[in-house]
Parts: sequence; C-alpha cells; structure tokens
Amino acid sequence: MPIDVYDPAALEPGTLRIIPIGGLGEIGRNMTSFEIDGKILIVDCGVLFPEEHQPGVDLILPDFGPIRDRLDDILGVVLTHGHEDHIGAVPYLLRLRQDIPLIGSGLTLAFIEAKLKEHKITPYTLQVKEGQKERLGPFNLEFVAVNHSIPDALAVAIKTAGGTVLHTGDFKMDQLPLDRRLTDLREFARLGTEGVDLFLVDSTNADVPGFTPTERSIGPVLDDVIARAPRRVIVASFSSHVHRVQQVLDAAHANGRRVALLGRSMVRNMTIAADLGYLTVPDGVLVDFKKAGNIPDDKIVYMSTGSQGEPMAVLSRMVNQDHQVEVGHGDTVILASSLIPGNENAVYRIIDGLTKLGAAVVHKGNAKVHVSGHAAAGELTYCYNILKPKNVLPVHGEYRHLVANAKLAVETGVPEANVLLAEDGTVIDLRDGVARKVGQLDIGYVYVDGSTVGEITEADLKDRRTLAEEGFISIIIVVDAQTGKVIVGPEIHAKGFAEDDSVFDAVRPRIVAALAEAAENGVRDPFALQQIVRRTVGRWVNTAFRRRPMIVPLVIEA
Amino acid sequence: MPIDVYDPAALEPGTLRIIPIGGLGEIGRNMTSFEIDGKILIVDCGVLFPEEHQPGVDLILPDFGPIRDRLDDILGVVLTHGHEDHIGAVPYLLRLRQDIPLIGSGLTLAFIEAKLKEHKITPYTLQVKEGQKERLGPFNLEFVAVNHSIPDALAVAIKTAGGTVLHTGDFKMDQLPLDRRLTDLREFARLGTEGVDLFLVDSTNADVPGFTPTERSIGPVLDDVIARAPRRVIVASFSSHVHRVQQVLDAAHANGRRVALLGRSMVRNMTIAADLGYLTVPDGVLVDFKKAGNIPDDKIVYMSTGSQGEPMAVLSRMVNQDHQVEVGHGDTVILASSLIPGNENAVYRIIDGLTKLGAAVVHKGNAKVHVSGHAAAGELTYCYNILKPKNVLPVHGEYRHLVANAKLAVETGVPEANVLLAEDGTVIDLRDGVARKVGQLDIGYVYVDGSTVGEITEADLKDRRTLAEEGFISIIIVVDAQTGKVIVGPEIHAKGFAEDDSVFDAVRPRIVAALAEAAENGVRDPFALQQIVRRTVGRWVNTAFRRRPMIVPLVIEA
Repeated sequence: MPIDVYDPAALEPGTLRIIPIGGLGEIGRNMTSFEIDGKILIVDCGVLFPEEHQPGVDLILPDFGPIRDRLDDILGVVLTHGHEDHIGAVPYLLRLRQDIPLIGSGLTLAFIEAKLKEHKITPYTLQVKEGQKERLGPFNLEFVAVNHSIPDALAVAIKTAGGTVLHTGDFKMDQLPLDRRLTDLREFARLGTEGVDLFLVDSTNADVPGFTPTERSIGPVLDDVIARAPRRVIVASFSSHVHRVQQVLDAAHANGRRVALLGRSMVRNMTIAADLGYLTVPDGVLVDFKKAGNIPDDKIVYMSTGSQGEPMAVLSRMVNQDHQVEVGHGDTVILASSLIPGNENAVYRIIDGLTKLGAAVVHKGNAKVHVSGHAAAGELTYCYNILKPKNVLPVHGEYRHLVANAKLAVETGVPEANVLLAEDGTVIDLRDGVARKVGQLDIGYVYVDGSTVGEITEADLKDRRTLAEEGFISIIIVVDAQTGKVIVGPEIHAKGFAEDDSVFDAVRPRIVAALAEAAENGVRDPFALQQIVRRTVGRWVNTAFRRRPMIVPLVIEA
Repeated sequence: MPIDVYDPAALEPGTLRIIPIGGLGEIGRNMTSFEIDGKILIVDCGVLFPEEHQPGVDLILPDFGPIRDRLDDILGVVLTHGHEDHIGAVPYLLRLRQDIPLIGSGLTLAFIEAKLKEHKITPYTLQVKEGQKERLGPFNLEFVAVNHSIPDALAVAIKTAGGTVLHTGDFKMDQLPLDRRLTDLREFARLGTEGVDLFLVDSTNADVPGFTPTERSIGPVLDDVIARAPRRVIVASFSSHVHRVQQVLDAAHANGRRVALLGRSMVRNMTIAADLGYLTVPDGVLVDFKKAGNIPDDKIVYMSTGSQGEPMAVLSRMVNQDHQVEVGHGDTVILASSLIPGNENAVYRIIDGLTKLGAAVVHKGNAKVHVSGHAAAGELTYCYNILKPKNVLPVHGEYRHLVANAKLAVETGVPEANVLLAEDGTVIDLRDGVARKVGQLDIGYVYVDGSTVGEITEADLKDRRTLAEEGFISIIIVVDAQTGKVIVGPEIHAKGFAEDDSVFDAVRPRIVAALAEAAENGVRDPFALQQIVRRTVGRWVNTAFRRRPMIVPLVIEA
C-alpha cells in the first residue's frame, strides 16, 4: 500500500505516524519524523559519508521530501548526540526554515552551534538533560541518559495520544564509563513498566556477538605504550571522542608528557568540551602546538585527527612529509580508532607510510586501543529484556544490521509480527499498541558537492564512474551550415584514455567516410550526425583497445 | 649507491644478485630475479589487483624493466604455486620471449597452461615435485613441499656459487592439512644444517599474532550449516581453493546433497584439479548446473565464485536477480572466504542484498568459515628457529608486513644487520655468506586496461580521478583564421558536473570578453587563447560552485 503522495489529511487524529527518513539501510544520515494531530517532531538530522561509487560527493543528506511541505508544522528537532551522522544535516534543514528549535544536551548543542556558526546561522535552542521532561504540543518528551562514544548522549521517550515511543539514538551499555554516566536502565525499566509501544533501537553492532568492552580498558594500554615510547607519541582518533582524548591526556600526564592538540576540529571540539566541563585537563598538560617543538621528544604527545586516512587531515600530511611534525625513527603512532569500511586501503597506506618513515604504529589490529561506541548483541538482549517493548523498529544500520537486531528482539520474546523491518521512507502508524507499516515513500540520495546541494543525480555519478574507469574521447567537427561540408575536423582529443593522440589517425578516415555516407543519404541534423560519429568511434575503440570510454561527439554548424 | 642503469658487467663472477621485481610493498605481482655468471632465474611472475585510486585498471604487472634487455639470459621461471599473484603475469612475460621454460608442480603448470591457452601460447614446461633436484646452468634447484591455500605449492632452494637461497613462495604451516602434505620442516632443517645464506620468506601474515587455524577446522562448520539449512545452500569461495571446495563436496555428500559448480573459473579449475587427482569428488555428488534446477531445494548446494563482491561474478548477479538461481527466503549463503582490503563495501553490499532477498548469510564475521593461507607470526618463529638462516629478506607484503616479519627474524636470533628491508627494485648481492643492498632500480607500475599494456600513466590516472571527482566542462570556440574573430561558440558542454547547461549562460559573456581583450592585445595563438579560456572558466566555476572540474578548452581556427 504505497502512498506516493504524502497526504497529511490521511492521518487520523490520535494516530502517531513515524517515518524513518534516513539511517535505515545505511550507517549515517539518521533522521526520523514523528507526526500526530498535524504536528511534527524530528529526531536527529545527520549526514552520510559517500562510498567509492559516489566519486566527488562531499556529503549525503537525508531526503527532506517527506517534510519539505510541512516545515511550519515542525515543533522541534531533538538531537540525541553530537556526532555528524546525527547533527550534520541540521544546517541544510535550517536553510529551509531557520527558526526550527533544536533540542539537545549541553555538549550536543555546543557542537551544533559551533557548526551552525560556520554557516552563519544562530539557532533557537532548548537545552535539556537526562530526567528532564518537556512538552511540545502533542509530544511529551522524557530524556534518558545513554552512554556512547561521545559524552552527554540522550535517548528520548516520546509520549503521545497514539502511544509511547522510545528512541535510543546511538548507544552502548558500558557498565564502567569514564564519566560514570551509565545508559540508564532503571529508567528503561520504569518506561517499560509504564509501557513502551514502539522501541527504535540502534542496530549498528547487532551482528557483533557478546559485549563491547569498556572504554576504560583502553587507558592501561595507552599508558603502557606511552611509557615505553622512546621518542614522540602521536595519537590519532575522532575529534569528538572526548573520553578517548581524556584517556590520552591522563596517560600523558602520568608519564610526565605534555599534549599538543593537532587539527582544527580536534582543537575546536576539545576547547568546547573543556569549557563545558566534559573534558578534565590535568594542570599544565596541554601545550600550544606552536610551542611543542621546544619540548623534548620524549616529553610530548600529539593528539591528532586523520585516523581514517582522510587525505587532508594531519596524519596523512605527516605521511606525505607535509606537516611541521616530521615523523621519524623512534616515534610511536597510535591509531586509537575504528576502521570504517571503505577506508581500509587509505588507513593501511597511512600505516605503511608511517612505518616507512621509521615509526612504530599501534592500531586496533595489534593492540586494544579502540572499543566501539555501539551496543553489541549481548547488550541489546539486556536492553530488550529490561524494556519489554510491545513493538520494535530497528534503526541505524545497514540492512544486515537491522535484520540481526530484529532477530535479537524476537529471541528475547517480542512477537515476530511486532518487529518491523523498515527502510528509509517506510510510513509506520502507531495506535492502541499496534504498529503497522502503511506505506512507502520514495526516498533519494541528496548529494552535496562543493556549494551545490541536490543537483548531482545518479546519472551524473554514472557519468563520473565511466569517466573514471575509461576517460573520454571528444570529437569536434564543424560543418558548413549551407552545404553540410566538413570545414574543420575531425578534431579528436582524449583525457584519461591513455594513448598517444596519434592512435586517432586510424579512426579519422572512418569518421569522414561515415559522415560522407550520411551526407549522401541526406542526413543534415547535427544531432543525428553526432550519433553517427559516436557509433563510429565507439565501435573502433572497443575493437582496437577493448575499452569503452565516454564518446563525446560535437557537430557544429558554422 | 643507486645503479640507475642496470649494468650486468658490474656483477662479479661468483656473486649472486637478487632483485625483487615485484611483491615488496604490495600484496601481489610477486616476481624475483636471481642472477649469477650472466644467467638469470626468475621465481614467480604474478599480477597485482588495482585499488580504488587506480580506476579502470584491470591488472597491474611487474615492471619487467630489470630483465627486459636480458631475456635471452633467462634460464627459466620457477612458479611456486598457481595463484594469480604468482602466475598471472606469465603470459605478458612470454609475449616478450615465448620459449622461456616454466618450472612448477603438476597443478601449478596445469593452471598456467589453461591461462596461456586463452592467450594462445603453448609454453615450454618442466614439471617438478617436492624432493626433486634440477640443475639450470649455475643454479642448482631443490624443491620443498609447502602448504598453502592451493595444493601442490613449492618452496625452492637455489644453490649457487654465491650462496644458497631458500624462497618460500606463499606458505603456512597447517599441521593437519587435508591432503597430509605438510610444509616440510624436516627439509627446512636439513637445508638449514647445510647452511642457508639468504631466506626469502612470505610476510603476508607476519603482523598477525599466533597461528593460522587448520583448514580442517572449517569442515565441521560447513557440515553444521549445511545440515541445518532448510533450503538451498550457496557457498562462495576462491575458484582455486581446491581444499575448500573439497570440504564443501564432502559436507554436501554427508548431508545427502548434490553440488553444482557455478562460474567459469570454478568449473575450469575444479575440472583440472579433479582430473589430476587433487580434488576427490565423492561418487555422484556433482551435478551439471543445467540439471540442478530439477533437484529439490533441500538437496542442492551451489559452489560459486564472487566472494569478493566482483560485480560480474555469480554472487553479484544473484543479488541483482540477474542469475538463474533466484535467491529467496530460506536460502543459506556461505561466504567461505577472506575479505581482501578494499573490497569491504562491495562484499557488505552483497551481504545486505542477499539478506534483503531473505537469505541467511554466513561469513567469517559470524562463523569460522575461513582460514588464511599464510603463516602467522607464531608459525614464522618456528620456521626461523628450524632453518636458522644467515640472512633474511622478507618478501610478499605491504611495508608494514615486511617490517613485522623482519622483527620476528631478529627476535628469533638473526642479527639485525642481516635482516634486509628492501623494496621492489632493490639490488642485493650475496657472496661469502654476506648479503648487501648494492643499489636501487626505478620500478614502476605497468597497467593493463582492456588490450592495452603499459600505456596508462600516472598522469592518466590523475586525469581519471579528477574526472571522477568533478567531471569536466568542454568549451569549443571556432575563430576565423584570418581575422581571429569568433565564428562559432563558445559552445559549452559538461559531463559529470551535475548542473543544468543553463548555468553556463553566466560564463559565456566572460569568455567572450576575455577573448576580446586577448584579441586587443594581439594574442592569436590558439594554445594561448585556450589557456585564457581555461583560466576564465576555472575561476568562475570555483567561485560559483566551489568545484574544480577538468576544464577542456578548444580553440579551432577555420
């Protein structure tokens, strides 16, 4: 029962409609819309990072299609935490309507405000914390502390006439978190006792058996590596991972070393985190990068970005010897980070490059210097058993993760019929404890490239892939508008095709012959002539080189 | 002391010169040259598969530069085993001199002969087996059995006046191999007692702690998965992994199922392996694919290619529902294979696609259905301790693997000065038990694209990456050869640039103005005018869109 046109009138009063706009079938661009009685609440508004088959794309946004005509009905956007895949698309949403209120914890709002400042937007914000309740029109919100790889993450319970929803955001269940701020299972228990009709739950690690180790387990490893390091230590991690940086600061301090932060986002985020009290900087441990060169090599730790092999980040620039910190023999580099699928080759190039420069490289492949930020299967089973939700909607994950999470829900006793496997744009209605899929909206990818938003189409990306694989050959011919006679050309040029231009001498006579034949047959339309040129060159290049470059013919009348 | 020109006269009689031509600093295109007294022996001649920053490239060959002018001095090519990264470049070498003898085991030669047949080459071959000794001019060869993820792999000891070398090829030390053919450590011990001056040793898994589990451990897992599978089972693996296929045949047979082989290379290789007795096909278990449709779903196993997400292989076609086997609910797919770095996204797309079609997907992430073919660190320490080589040259691996292997050599007692870290093209001379790096040759990448070999340059790949990231804008202007006046244009076309052509209305007047100014200044050279057009359009597009497409200006005189 697809609903091709999203008709708000079709939604009965008292029914809660849930539309996952992004984040289902992908890791990123998380965004969910909740609607009841004509009002809309959004949870999260993140970006997705492109894969190798989307060349040149900077970011992928959620498709705002389902809410684009309903902007005035949006009462607010709840941001569960400050990661890009949950807040990164907010600037693009606020471009559509700047005064949509943003609701989130102190750190989350500080991160989004810093980002919006770059876009020259000052948002309306409502700061909340765990235990707090807020009413937004028909939505009664309750915020619950959850633990994740960034401090101050929140789950949100949404109580409406249509039923109660609990949305975890991203979370894990570290029982010994650095900041002692646990995922609040007592609150989960209370909400479950009151009755949770629909549970939206993070699926990222649902196919990972067992339990994610505590963040605290990394500390001794960092301490040990730093203690043994004969010279400089460079640690790379995500620039929002406050607790990871905290552990680096503590380990450096314990070993009598000072720490210089490297990378714009690292400096910005840690400054915010320290100002707001989320990061505790041991007295005198931080040193400005500009002064770090004066500190002996065995007394300094650099805390840097670039752990995913990003070409412009600090670590890549060190490998290319294009950074003031010249990595050399005796230096130790710690990649205290995950390895995001698709980045493997880039990260291995970094590891090889650093090794070649003489550094010892410590990474999750050879030491326990990273733990995930997401609940593994074992944690999720605790969660289901404590909450006992009526219905479950696995969110945040590729399809295999959603299926794995659904399986856990069923294994812990949620009836199979009550576990919804949905994708971006699936329309789900909740009423009287029953959650039903009632339709499917078309959801596309919205590509950001440079300052362009949403202009790049799948056809453009196909062109780009063809250009990447094969290059192109352009053929320009100027014909006399009166006589149809060739005045100039065929001029043939190629890029990325990798042959000497002299190879085209072989095809020029064929083009001339094909055009002559066309002229005899009375073909004069430039477009038709272009097709003839395209076919002639395409056949030749395929036979002669077994290749299929893009053929770009241009016949101009003069 | 680089030797830019490879001067054979510079090599003193009685000195053995070793040049790793490929495989150091990369996983693939393994090839090593050994020279003494004017004669050359090659060990292996493989291909490397391209990474994502080498778009459109089909294969990468070793750079034959160091031996190109010495073809007549080559006495033979020893092929240690039948994997593509060790034999794949043989057809390209034999194109240079067709009668170079190929030396290898029965299965290895059968695989390379099948490949050469496609290239219409019948090679000169010398079949050898473990324990056999052969003399080729100044080279006395002894072949030693090693265990790997393909049967019939050999290490080769090369005894010369300059010293004795042992080259492992690829190997591991499975102590319970399916075919009971162990890596022959007794022979390693004997050779070591006689004295091995230089040990060339596989580094692929040197940074993996511990021991690679036995191939045998996969059998019970396959058996269990197949026994529980309610409907069809599809197993994907490498098409040369005879023992993996053997275990699938056995598990299918034990569960009363028949097996259909899918994929051209799978059928070809397993036919060879069965004919030569390397694969034991249980009576009546194999069924032709065309007849497999008549067999009940719970009585069939499909053994297929495509475990790395290759777009044209069987498994990808199943996901795209472009294959006669229509995967659906209840089917079980087993990826009994490694996950080669760089293929992660493609493989995860396969897993998601199959999951979406309703299949249960079993892979190394959730079950023990794969073991590596390479010796891990623990195995390598055994090897060093049994062999006690004088000098060590880690081969087969990215730089980090070579460094990890070097470290193991040192830890087991090889003096640090005797462990050589080399790269492709490093020239190493061996004499009187001393191995020294004496030079470094320039070694490049030789790209195969379609039927083109070695034409693609790094500049072409850079063009392709630019085209992929940004697309291109072409501007064609025809000027009167006499007056310099613009007759046609600017005609502007773009591909992969992702904007409506109407955006170019904004830049046309700027181009016209720039050309008018150039005309005033007396600029008439088409090349100079093209540069002016390039700059004008480049600046505009960068300012207006923050993008940097390739600008392809063409000014033609008519």
